[in-house]
Amino acid sequence: MSGDDARLRAWAYLAAVAEPPCTPLIALAERIGPEDAAQLIRARRLPAGGLLEATEARAGIDTAAEDLQTCAKIGARLVTRDDDDWPAWSLLALDRAGSAARAGAPLALWVRGPGPLTGLGDRAVSVVGSRAASSYGDYVAGRLSGELAARDRVVLSGGAYGIDGAAHRGALAAGGSTAAILACGIDRDYPSGHAGLLAEIARTGLVISEYAPGTTAAKYRFLTRNRLVAALAGAVVVVEAGRRSGAANTAAWARGLGRPLGAVPGPVTSATSVGCHQLIADGEAALVTDADAVLALIEPDGHDNHRPSAPRPLDGLAPDQLKVIEALPARGALGIDEIAFVSGLPTAGVRAALAMLEVEGLIDGASGRWSLRPAGLTGPRDVT
Amino acid sequence: MSGDDARLRAWAYLAAVAEPPCTPLIALAERIGPEDAAQLIRARRLPAGGLLEATEARAGIDTAAEDLQTCAKIGARLVTRDDDDWPAWSLLALDRAGSAARAGAPLALWVRGPGPLTGLGDRAVSVVGSRAASSYGDYVAGRLSGELAARDRVVLSGGAYGIDGAAHRGALAAGGSTAAILACGIDRDYPSGHAGLLAEIARTGLVISEYAPGTTAAKYRFLTRNRLVAALAGAVVVVEAGRRSGAANTAAWARGLGRPLGAVPGPVTSATSVGCHQLIADGEAALVTDADAVLALIEPDGHDNHRPSAPRPLDGLAPDQLKVIEALPARGALGIDEIAFVSGLPTAGVRAALAMLEVEGLIDGASGRWSLRPAGLTGPRDVT
Repeated sequence: MSGDDARLRAWAYLAAVAEPPCTPLIALAERIGPEDAAQLIRARRLPAGGLLEATEARAGIDTAAEDLQTCAKIGARLVTRDDDDWPAWSLLALDRAGSAARAGAPLALWVRGPGPLTGLGDRAVSVVGSRAASSYGDYVAGRLSGELAARDRVVLSGGAYGIDGAAHRGALAAGGSTAAILACGIDRDYPSGHAGLLAEIARTGLVISEYAPGTTAAKYRFLTRNRLVAALAGAVVVVEAGRRSGAANTAAWARGLGRPLGAVPGPVTSATSVGCHQLIADGEAALVTDADAVLALIEPDGHDNHRPSAPRPLDGLAPDQLKVIEALPARGALGIDEIAFVSGLPTAGVRAALAMLEVEGLIDGASGRWSLRPAGLTGPRDVT
Repeated sequence: MSGDDARLRAWAYLAAVAEPPCTPLIALAERIGPEDAAQLIRARRLPAGGLLEATEARAGIDTAAEDLQTCAKIGARLVTRDDDDWPAWSLLALDRAGSAARAGAPLALWVRGPGPLTGLGDRAVSVVGSRAASSYGDYVAGRLSGELAARDRVVLSGGAYGIDGAAHRGALAAGGSTAAILACGIDRDYPSGHAGLLAEIARTGLVISEYAPGTTAAKYRFLTRNRLVAALAGAVVVVEAGRRSGAANTAAWARGLGRPLGAVPGPVTSATSVGCHQLIADGEAALVTDADAVLALIEPDGHDNHRPSAPRPLDGLAPDQLKVIEALPARGALGIDEIAFVSGLPTAGVRAALAMLEVEGLIDGASGRWSLRPAGLTGPRDVT
């Protein structure tokens, strides 16, 4: 076994040993490397009160080799933080949101299909909504996704029945690219009625999961998965959602992570549009009716620029200032509370850092909301 | 003929002698009284460059006696600035908006029906929309108006086919009160297919017009009439509107006059909802789905207080400050440009006045929008 293989197996072991997201596990793997981290966990040489408990159930079960084999058979691969294809920039906001429940970046991603993960970012738009969609919702999700695909956008969704399925199909029908993020193992077809659809998505796009092969879908995994649907896209659109729905949870992630959020209106007589109307009325989501409106959320200046704005040279910034810079989205603005949420800093610390960053010309503020200042003086620096 | 009768006839003459709105005519009548004003106009003793031209065509035609007789026959009356029933408070914003095209208060109002004009104000909600309404729009307008009527609100609209008619009917069906503002003489049934509906409205509510009996409906009169649909209500709701529609004009009046504006969403596939979606997406209107949402626009604090907040004692204020105070709506907030529009002051003057008024504790500002501070230290003063 080559060193690379051993390292990949260690990542596969770590990816299965604790229920994601597990921020301390990532921290350990990044500090001492995945192989030594796996070694410590197998040997149970961990301090109590965190990782020891999180890895207790599965520490002795090493299915890494089988998992990688299962993947290879279905044309899937494990993408880790070692890979050029690791979507580091998209996941930055999650790295910073480590203290919120279910927040935290994935340790690794199991991926099926030819599409590059790093090709997502601002190019991807998540189109989500109720499983119990109306025919109106199905139609609009399909049409909107087709329009987005025709504009060279990747349509991201959750692979579920209803709006998710209509979104994937709309993108495929337009000859475009689409990606499904699952709440179960990459080798599982969930829902089973979408096995054909998921295979078709994987043929040209991407099926993505942070769950090891064999992992079954579960309610809490859907809620955990939703953060990736928000994080990996440049914007999130809710097409239909009832008063309480999973789509509302994805919408909350979009807000928390600073992703622009749109909602499609519908008849006020339709129960499946209540959630969308509430998001718009509460000022949480912008009303969007078509792809133009959605793309305007990502590119308010009208520039057709797929790349997120490149980070500025950050040498000499204080740690709090760095955290605030990293908390700010590539496009759009955040309020102080949102920055505090994403950065994990106290509000007072955020305020102080914002003041300094504004003086240094790195950010812009208006009406209490803050955004990265576009393109600095020096060239872009690639973070991926 | 008693002095009162002579004065009323003079008002009736003035109400017909120039195309409304005619701010200089009102100013003259208020300065020297309606009888002397009528005298000057008949005698053509007016300076050129305004009133002389505005009254040229009809100065010699005095149909006041016949107009009042026609009115009496159909149970209508002429309400003037002499009457306790004159809705002075509601029309204040129009008095101040005299410089904008078609702005300016009516000189008098022809009114048919038992409802009091001063009973409108915050109690009235205008429900408007396209004549070419969809069945969805008709249904929603009727339901919303029924809900509003059941909450003791007067449903105001324009008496037209489509949304207007559905709104009036919805209020009547709920046993509530409704008022129609016409763009033609009070004795005309326009549209003729609504003769029965207008009669029913007049039986329990109000039919209102600033146009003398016999005046025919005309396109520019609809646009002029729309300002009253906005001014006489506590809030305006657009139920359905195409890309270009009369309802958009009423919405613009609502914004200009500081009336809260709501719009009902609909299917994004429906051409008759395009205008509503645009108003919401542009931040011009709040998304409303039912009566609760509409009433929240009027009473954001949840208090069921039908009266507009009483004006504060204004002694000692500079003239510009007084104009700004009068420009601010009873509820809701205005931006500086809107205040400038309503008050007729230059932006710089508005800024200066706002600063002083805030120091004096008479107004509140947040995010660049300004509102009257609720209930002062002293008791309310009645302005009507």
